[in-house]
Amino acid sequence: MRLLYLGVPLAVLAIIPKAGVAAGLSGAQAPHNMGPVLLSLVVIIVAAKVGADLAARISQPPVLGELAVGLVIGNLVLFGFHGLDFIRTDVVVSALAEIGVILLLFEVGLQSNVNEMLRLGLSAFLVAALGVIAPFALGFGVARMAIPEQSVYVHVFIGATLCATSVGITARVFKDLGKLHLIEAKIILGAAVIDDVIGLVVVAIVQGIITAAAGANAISTLDVVGIVAKATAFLVGSVVIGQALSPILFRLASRLRGDGLLLGAALFICFSFAYLAAKIQLAPIVGAFAAGLILDEAHYRDLRDRGEHGLEDLLRPITSFLVPIFFVLMGIKVQLGEFGNLSTVGFASALALAAVIGKQICSLGAFGKGIDRILIGLGMIPRGEVGLIVAAIGAGMTFHGKHVVDERTFSAIVIVVMVTTFVTPPLLKWRMARRPAA
Amino acid sequence: MRLLYLGVPLAVLAIIPKAGVAAGLSGAQAPHNMGPVLLSLVVIIVAAKVGADLAARISQPPVLGELAVGLVIGNLVLFGFHGLDFIRTDVVVSALAEIGVILLLFEVGLQSNVNEMLRLGLSAFLVAALGVIAPFALGFGVARMAIPEQSVYVHVFIGATLCATSVGITARVFKDLGKLHLIEAKIILGAAVIDDVIGLVVVAIVQGIITAAAGANAISTLDVVGIVAKATAFLVGSVVIGQALSPILFRLASRLRGDGLLLGAALFICFSFAYLAAKIQLAPIVGAFAAGLILDEAHYRDLRDRGEHGLEDLLRPITSFLVPIFFVLMGIKVQLGEFGNLSTVGFASALALAAVIGKQICSLGAFGKGIDRILIGLGMIPRGEVGLIVAAIGAGMTFHGKHVVDERTFSAIVIVVMVTTFVTPPLLKWRMARRPAA
Repeated sequence: MRLLYLGVPLAVLAIIPKAGVAAGLSGAQAPHNMGPVLLSLVVIIVAAKVGADLAARISQPPVLGELAVGLVIGNLVLFGFHGLDFIRTDVVVSALAEIGVILLLFEVGLQSNVNEMLRLGLSAFLVAALGVIAPFALGFGVARMAIPEQSVYVHVFIGATLCATSVGITARVFKDLGKLHLIEAKIILGAAVIDDVIGLVVVAIVQGIITAAAGANAISTLDVVGIVAKATAFLVGSVVIGQALSPILFRLASRLRGDGLLLGAALFICFSFAYLAAKIQLAPIVGAFAAGLILDEAHYRDLRDRGEHGLEDLLRPITSFLVPIFFVLMGIKVQLGEFGNLSTVGFASALALAAVIGKQICSLGAFGKGIDRILIGLGMIPRGEVGLIVAAIGAGMTFHGKHVVDERTFSAIVIVVMVTTFVTPPLLKWRMARRPAA
Repeated sequence: MRLLYLGVPLAVLAIIPKAGVAAGLSGAQAPHNMGPVLLSLVVIIVAAKVGADLAARISQPPVLGELAVGLVIGNLVLFGFHGLDFIRTDVVVSALAEIGVILLLFEVGLQSNVNEMLRLGLSAFLVAALGVIAPFALGFGVARMAIPEQSVYVHVFIGATLCATSVGITARVFKDLGKLHLIEAKIILGAAVIDDVIGLVVVAIVQGIITAAAGANAISTLDVVGIVAKATAFLVGSVVIGQALSPILFRLASRLRGDGLLLGAALFICFSFAYLAAKIQLAPIVGAFAAGLILDEAHYRDLRDRGEHGLEDLLRPITSFLVPIFFVLMGIKVQLGEFGNLSTVGFASALALAAVIGKQICSLGAFGKGIDRILIGLGMIPRGEVGLIVAAIGAGMTFHGKHVVDERTFSAIVIVVMVTTFVTPPLLKWRMARRPAA
């Protein structure tokens, strides 16, 4: 095995030094300079698979390994190696990552539906609401103290990155231990789904406020109300209208001749909603999530009956190709050089602490006989996909000529995601070992 | 049904006029301006599915419908509608199309293997060789007469676009009529695979010669020999070395933990070969085809045993998403305005004639008792994917500051592809009806 880890990176490095030459030549040759894009894909595929393998060996989720290996690649510059710098800036690679993350949120949306969310009950809802408010407030406070020179909008944005729980990691631990039937597990998973939604609404609102504020010099309470109304109206509207339209669309699609109609119709809905969200200045992922939420297997039974695979089966190869591009790229974008500065280390640590403590507070929302609130609080710790996506959105926004999320803040947030992901499985195992068997 | 065709395009048109606004705003919002990319994807998905449906209704292959609907969208400018012009020039959409076509050639390569090709026998090989030489010579001659003002390299390139047979259409017709067992069918399908390979070698050589000639003012015979040697060495070398390395790679991959390793390893090989081809100034598709050729199911039996789906099953959703982008985009790029000019119409007609006659000559290579040479000649008529890809490569190359394949030539080649695809099924049906039952 050791040979594998030595061999693969060396083989990759061996073909890299001339990448610049290839890029220069292929520009005259093929349209759009595919050389660097292809090389980026090769590097990212190897990084993702090696990262996922390393993570699996220490019982961690693949996303952590993808981030970690990306982080190593992105910081080879510290050793004077600049041969892979082009990956960070290639516009096509970034667009592929973004399409990947749009499809990921679509998939996440598919796994839940509106009625299910309403059934989850008050406990899950209260845990979710507190789990958004507390980390948001703490993150805002930390940012305000650590980087007072930045605008209040930056502080608000950093608070927003800490809201959404990454349910995948916790679900995996409960499943591996055979404890998915615990009431605590159900509350955590339900709350994680709800706080995904609340988190996306918060992001939509914060994003709207910053965009409005960047246009004017100050924004009024009326503006804020307008933005909240717009974001809420989009989500509620798309869910209501979408649930009515989606069966009609699938019925139309089922009348068409040809192959791949189920996938085509689903991608049509996903990209349409993402586009509409972008058009009213929300993040495309908000639209993609809403699109996933409204799709229900009942809508496309006709197409499945024609021998098409299930929608999740059809999406999996596409997301398995595109999604790791996002996470490896996020890792690559972390500038470890920033952490030579002690104040950045302090900032990242304080944010991580805010993230952990914020989710402990949320367990106060859970009630029921003999319930283990600490277990719930621990299970809510991991931040993941959504936090990173929010950070990436912030990195792409400017406010008065400066990036809302600058390199230092971005690196700190990625570290928070990695730390919270890393500590959760051992903490959960420890807590469940102390719990009397259910 | 009529409602569907009215409704869908109208719905698409309704959201378009403000695309420019969205693009402008989302630039400040999200990184990389995803608005236009998402809208392009939505339009292309609808175009592809409606096109495939229309084609199926007149017993034509999906690719023809995708091209035709793309052509309609691309020529809405003739009616003063410019709201979709951005699709033609969006760099991300073009890159997605190119990744799609790389994966398509990888899939085509997967469907044949080296040993099978050696078994096909002399008839198939002679038919394939004549089927490359004759259309190449005729296409070169037509180009030399129709556009004498262009350089000889342009004429050579146009000849190259006419070489490769699109086997899919003919195979579909034989299959639909239950005649795949005919000796003529086997010769045609075998020859089509072989002339794909020869066609790609010709393209690699022509491309190399033009690149060399663009650098120097004249190229020597020695240069040409060098280029032929390089292209041949790449294909032979990648097949020989690749067949040895691919089982090792899959064995390494099967030792990794994690999901999606079969797809990951296959994409790694595909993109690596495509990148290496680009690096030595061949088209990436040449590498992708070679990569597909060397992969054999035996290499990845270990991974399949772990419950992974078959490689073709895993690739299908990805190609079903990305490949139609290429064909719809090719259609969009056809400038029907060019055909207002009578000389362009003449040029396209002469090229189409050269394409048809060239493949009739190739049937002289077939021998055997009672063989129907006319049937073979007719079955070899369709040009498709590879011809379009070659034309797209030419459109991306410049020679002394001018595109090797200019808009007029590109449009003519797309028309040739559409015409040859369109006429083949009825001609085959007519000829087989006259044939005594086998």
